[in-house]
Amino acid sequence: MSSTAGQVIKCRAAVAWEAGKPLVIEEVEVAPPQANEVRVKILFTSLCHTDVYFWEAKGQTPLFPRIFGHEAGGIVESVGEGVTDLKPGDHVLPVFTGECKECRHCKSKESNMCDLLRINTDRGVMLSDGKTRFSKNGQPIYHFVGTSTFSEYTVVHVGCLAKINPAAPLDKVCVLSCGISTGLGATLNVAKPKKGQSVAVFGMGAVGLAAAEGARIAGASRIIGIDLNSSRFEEAKKFGVTEFVNPKDHDKPVQQVIAQMTDGGVDRAVECTGSIQAMISAFECVHDGWGVAVLVGVPNKDDSFKTHPMNLLNERTLKGTFFGNYKPRTDIPDVVEKYMNKELELDKFITHAVTFSEINKAFEYMLHGKSIRCIIRMDA
Amino acid sequence: MSSTAGQVIKCRAAVAWEAGKPLVIEEVEVAPPQANEVRVKILFTSLCHTDVYFWEAKGQTPLFPRIFGHEAGGIVESVGEGVTDLKPGDHVLPVFTGECKECRHCKSKESNMCDLLRINTDRGVMLSDGKTRFSKNGQPIYHFVGTSTFSEYTVVHVGCLAKINPAAPLDKVCVLSCGISTGLGATLNVAKPKKGQSVAVFGMGAVGLAAAEGARIAGASRIIGIDLNSSRFEEAKKFGVTEFVNPKDHDKPVQQVIAQMTDGGVDRAVECTGSIQAMISAFECVHDGWGVAVLVGVPNKDDSFKTHPMNLLNERTLKGTFFGNYKPRTDIPDVVEKYMNKELELDKFITHAVTFSEINKAFEYMLHGKSIRCIIRMDA
Repeated sequence: MSSTAGQVIKCRAAVAWEAGKPLVIEEVEVAPPQANEVRVKILFTSLCHTDVYFWEAKGQTPLFPRIFGHEAGGIVESVGEGVTDLKPGDHVLPVFTGECKECRHCKSKESNMCDLLRINTDRGVMLSDGKTRFSKNGQPIYHFVGTSTFSEYTVVHVGCLAKINPAAPLDKVCVLSCGISTGLGATLNVAKPKKGQSVAVFGMGAVGLAAAEGARIAGASRIIGIDLNSSRFEEAKKFGVTEFVNPKDHDKPVQQVIAQMTDGGVDRAVECTGSIQAMISAFECVHDGWGVAVLVGVPNKDDSFKTHPMNLLNERTLKGTFFGNYKPRTDIPDVVEKYMNKELELDKFITHAVTFSEINKAFEYMLHGKSIRCIIRMDA
Repeated sequence: MSSTAGQVIKCRAAVAWEAGKPLVIEEVEVAPPQANEVRVKILFTSLCHTDVYFWEAKGQTPLFPRIFGHEAGGIVESVGEGVTDLKPGDHVLPVFTGECKECRHCKSKESNMCDLLRINTDRGVMLSDGKTRFSKNGQPIYHFVGTSTFSEYTVVHVGCLAKINPAAPLDKVCVLSCGISTGLGATLNVAKPKKGQSVAVFGMGAVGLAAAEGARIAGASRIIGIDLNSSRFEEAKKFGVTEFVNPKDHDKPVQQVIAQMTDGGVDRAVECTGSIQAMISAFECVHDGWGVAVLVGVPNKDDSFKTHPMNLLNERTLKGTFFGNYKPRTDIPDVVEKYMNKELELDKFITHAVTFSEINKAFEYMLHGKSIRCIIRMDA
């Protein structure tokens, strides 16, 4: 048991006091974990678009002050009552959605949408008592998706922590907490291309590149990357992308361009932008008879997916996925092993690194489209 | 070799001379089969909605005179050049869509949409020479979907004939040529409910009842039948349907009614009406995380399938199927065996029987919604 167990820990955290304003490194107080909670020392965190989206708070009810961050790697400092799966010293990845192992979703082999711990972006407090574990001078500071990894210490529900191989480098595998697993799993777990098949990936951001990495691992013969920004294509080659299509370069719908390139359509398509038009194109560009399209990107709330039903009756399949259909506790440790045995390449996703005190630079890199992933080192 | 091989056969056929007018039993001439064709003596045929739809010819280019009929059982009379899979005396079911065994679709395990022999409702001639094999006094009479089973003899491409167990009663298994296999396969091959799961079936016509029969065979715990006509519900109980919903009895969308009945949604849904609203309801009534909806019914040409993409991202799957994903030559013989070993019940689908000379009665039964399947006995 560490000497800090059961005590309030004072540490540094990057606090978002207001929507869209630079984070401020503050000394905060982190309360001990309650029942079924774990306090984790974060060593590395990275920045994902979802952090930026809720920090900008343009499309949702603002909740501030708040500690963002949900892609990270850390070490268990102490555990609350009833936690038997983890002990101090265990290496963990916090995940924004959980696995209670008791509900119908957790008991189903097909779902990872846990009834108890499914992502909730509106909730800024812990489940057990509806309170925060962060405060500064007595003022509560809200959590974000149950992880809040932009802090040297954070408190997380045990169901939202994947216990991983302690030999895995946390400065690399921390990116598996969210975006990379989401794209990778969309291809490997949901689209499931067979060796030699063709795969179209819409969106060449981190999630799309991870979907392409999944296609590479699956042995796809052709990986067609689609993006409105042609400058992304050079980088995408490192992720196995073999051909590129910029819809702006064509005067017909991109699904028709892809069908012509592939004698009727690709075998699999993965949509990673959230644009409703890209979703429709991704579905309509798969081959009849066996084509499967998988939607990953999160749409706007008023969007409507529209297609002619004959596109379905001609034996196409349309599926959506959440976190790549990975169950956080059951499956993420195995994804880490894929990296350890060199099947999965992660280093190429990590384009930048900053110290914790420079965290706002990571926001700049992402807002300017410069980074795929920027690692934030907490001890500097 | 039969004595008629290579000869023109004169026999009775029910000719549709004009759209929507009663068929006329005529003596017609049936030419010998050309290369890759087979002449079949039809013993039993049944009537399907698709015959009626093209006989009414309201939504398509009329093609008359024509011999309809595509659900049937018969015996091979003679075979054309190059036919090695079949010989005179073999028992066969003609199928409206074929399996060439050479194209990408036939070579794919997932598809049954043969490039060469896929259903073509506009073509009234044979593939090889673009001519008909039927005539009367020198006037050609058009074929229908390559089968034209409302004739004592017909000529069919070898790729559109399933060779079946000669012990199987043709007056029963003839209904496996189209509608019953379509519904059955939609459930067993595409929706694939697990034992104990719940299944909603939209439409309590022959295809929907066959989908319910598939759910019964799969061991579904609840089979919910949905139809706008409540008088169909009593009959549906014979097909394993356990609960009924008439959307007209509710003032909220039927998908909400079903979600309430099933704690969030059914595990599987099969849509067998072709109504676009039923398609959307079928998709939206499946449970998030694992629900699968399968579309079977053929929509109108201007329909648009619309749903909020979050319904997909919450891990629902939407698929369409054609002929229940059965490959006609490879799979239909096995469906016949399911009947022979009493796994599949067919007799309950057969509500009426008429002689060939009474064929117009079969149309009346269907138009008035009285029959599920009416068997037409060719030798009387």
